[in-house]
Amino acid sequence: MNWQGLIKEYAGLLPVTENTPALTLHEGNTPLIYFPHLSEELGIELYGKYEGLNPTGSFKDRGMVMAVAKAKEAGSKSVICASTGNTSAAAAAYAAKAGMKAVVVIPEGKVAMGKLAQAVMYGAEIVQIAGNFDDALTMVQHISEKYPVTLVNSVNPYRLEGQKTAAFEIIDQLGGQAPDILAIPVGNAGNISAYWKGFKEYAEQKQTSLPKIYGFEAEGSAAITKDEVITAPETVATAIRIGNPASWKLATNARDESGGMITSVTDEEILAAFKTLPAKEGIFAEPGSCASIAGVYQQVKAGTIAPGSKVVAVLTGNGLKDPQTAIDQITIDPVSLPNDEEAVTDYIKKTVGK
Amino acid sequence: MNWQGLIKEYAGLLPVTENTPALTLHEGNTPLIYFPHLSEELGIELYGKYEGLNPTGSFKDRGMVMAVAKAKEAGSKSVICASTGNTSAAAAAYAAKAGMKAVVVIPEGKVAMGKLAQAVMYGAEIVQIAGNFDDALTMVQHISEKYPVTLVNSVNPYRLEGQKTAAFEIIDQLGGQAPDILAIPVGNAGNISAYWKGFKEYAEQKQTSLPKIYGFEAEGSAAITKDEVITAPETVATAIRIGNPASWKLATNARDESGGMITSVTDEEILAAFKTLPAKEGIFAEPGSCASIAGVYQQVKAGTIAPGSKVVAVLTGNGLKDPQTAIDQITIDPVSLPNDEEAVTDYIKKTVGK
Repeated sequence: MNWQGLIKEYAGLLPVTENTPALTLHEGNTPLIYFPHLSEELGIELYGKYEGLNPTGSFKDRGMVMAVAKAKEAGSKSVICASTGNTSAAAAAYAAKAGMKAVVVIPEGKVAMGKLAQAVMYGAEIVQIAGNFDDALTMVQHISEKYPVTLVNSVNPYRLEGQKTAAFEIIDQLGGQAPDILAIPVGNAGNISAYWKGFKEYAEQKQTSLPKIYGFEAEGSAAITKDEVITAPETVATAIRIGNPASWKLATNARDESGGMITSVTDEEILAAFKTLPAKEGIFAEPGSCASIAGVYQQVKAGTIAPGSKVVAVLTGNGLKDPQTAIDQITIDPVSLPNDEEAVTDYIKKTVGK
Repeated sequence: MNWQGLIKEYAGLLPVTENTPALTLHEGNTPLIYFPHLSEELGIELYGKYEGLNPTGSFKDRGMVMAVAKAKEAGSKSVICASTGNTSAAAAAYAAKAGMKAVVVIPEGKVAMGKLAQAVMYGAEIVQIAGNFDDALTMVQHISEKYPVTLVNSVNPYRLEGQKTAAFEIIDQLGGQAPDILAIPVGNAGNISAYWKGFKEYAEQKQTSLPKIYGFEAEGSAAITKDEVITAPETVATAIRIGNPASWKLATNARDESGGMITSVTDEEILAAFKTLPAKEGIFAEPGSCASIAGVYQQVKAGTIAPGSKVVAVLTGNGLKDPQTAIDQITIDPVSLPNDEEAVTDYIKKTVGK
């Protein structure tokens, strides 16, 4: 009953050896939650795979546990990445548990320090350089080639290996079959690629079915949708604000092999989903996560998701990761009433009891 | 493999009937995480029960799923509470899933609106009254007596019923035995009472062992420790800043029946634990949660936790719930370096590689 984490639970399906440390923060085993209200509204059977309940609050933990465990197995004492968000938090947390050090390289003056608080709490060493984000990425790649510190950015191949386990879980949680459609946000395109890898591996080993993969980019960073690099990507969904996805080719393969699609949703559609999901289903996911829900709304309307379809939407991160967007998007303007029971009761009758 | 939530999983151990709706956000089933670095440092076997991975980010979900399901079973259309924090978030999320409305009553001008963002995202109606927090509490109690809206503050008896399930999980996760000691933060004293109820019920039904209960209040709100009501409680650990605990008598019973203790930890001890836990074990818990870890440090030093003891510390909420305290407590002051590989490599060698 105590879930042992990905490396122990999926040892036979991951590139682990007897020398791989059983590193874990008990990542994975996230709930697949049925959404009754949205299902009824849309005329489909809709579930959310709530990856925000991973230990650091995002799906990145699945890949990072593998990347850090393999780094430790190889004798590394530290890991390095260029990241300003979920990747740096996951890298720092797993490095802490593994007794290693995490170094996060960022462009000077470009990153709000609050975004780094979680990684700093996990003990990460932050280095800012006089350059842009691409310079930071080039820097960590070069350093990791010359010095015994392991690069854990998305080019690390173990990241996708860990991430594919979410597909295994979805099939098991649905009783042994894939959904008709997997709806997933697309930023760097690693996760969509990892899910497709996972679905294919399970199908080979266990004769399970394959879903169609529907990937959703944000309109302002829709590189794959537009088939061109976006040099200045912009979207409210910062977790998927990427103009030149690292796993571009793998993602289009997933789309084509599964008979699915990769398209874009607007910030308006993303923010509508961001507000609808917690208000109707009690699940709070970060804006980037909600690209999947926004996409489901859009494609039901377009007719490419048939009535009655079984759809799983991947919710990549916890809404608590990005409190500022929530505060910006809602109006917190409570009604003010006297300290008088009758006045408050009347108000409740009028607004709630109707 | 898909955890069905508390009402389905523990139906036989909870006050549910065939008419109780199977409400769930897949709460419970939170990881019990072994802490190797702290265990070695302290000479004990230390685990954390990480309740921050409940759907709204705190243990409150366990009690709230029961309270809201029973409200719906009784025909209520809405729930009401006076709360500024984790309780209001949980109430709003479960009300949303149940298709009900949540009303949160707060004292005017006393609550930072950012604290309410999560509840507002879940669709809560916020009402502020010209009065203090006690007035708000009295108000919701009276209204719920006269009007068909269910009170879900801690006086609702179903809250403790739901919360006791965490004790069941700990025993199952430890392979059928309770730990020697359960260390738990004490604020309103409901949770310590619920755990003891859970341990006793499992012991009766399954002949499992009983732990000693060690409860830890914050020094500035240590009502039970000092055996007096604290009229102006003050502590950095806002989740346990309560001067007159609702479940006072139940908590002292748990202490006395288990042969345990209730004592206090200082804000300094709490903040030290708040920083140590993520940096050494990769788990980020809110300050109130860390009273349990602070207490374990204190009592190992005092000799009341013997070397080799098996100790479970309850971590009541996710660190992402309270980003401001993290930002206040850490120094985010990255080193600035030129965009030059040699300079960065030298720095890493010096600080990390040593």
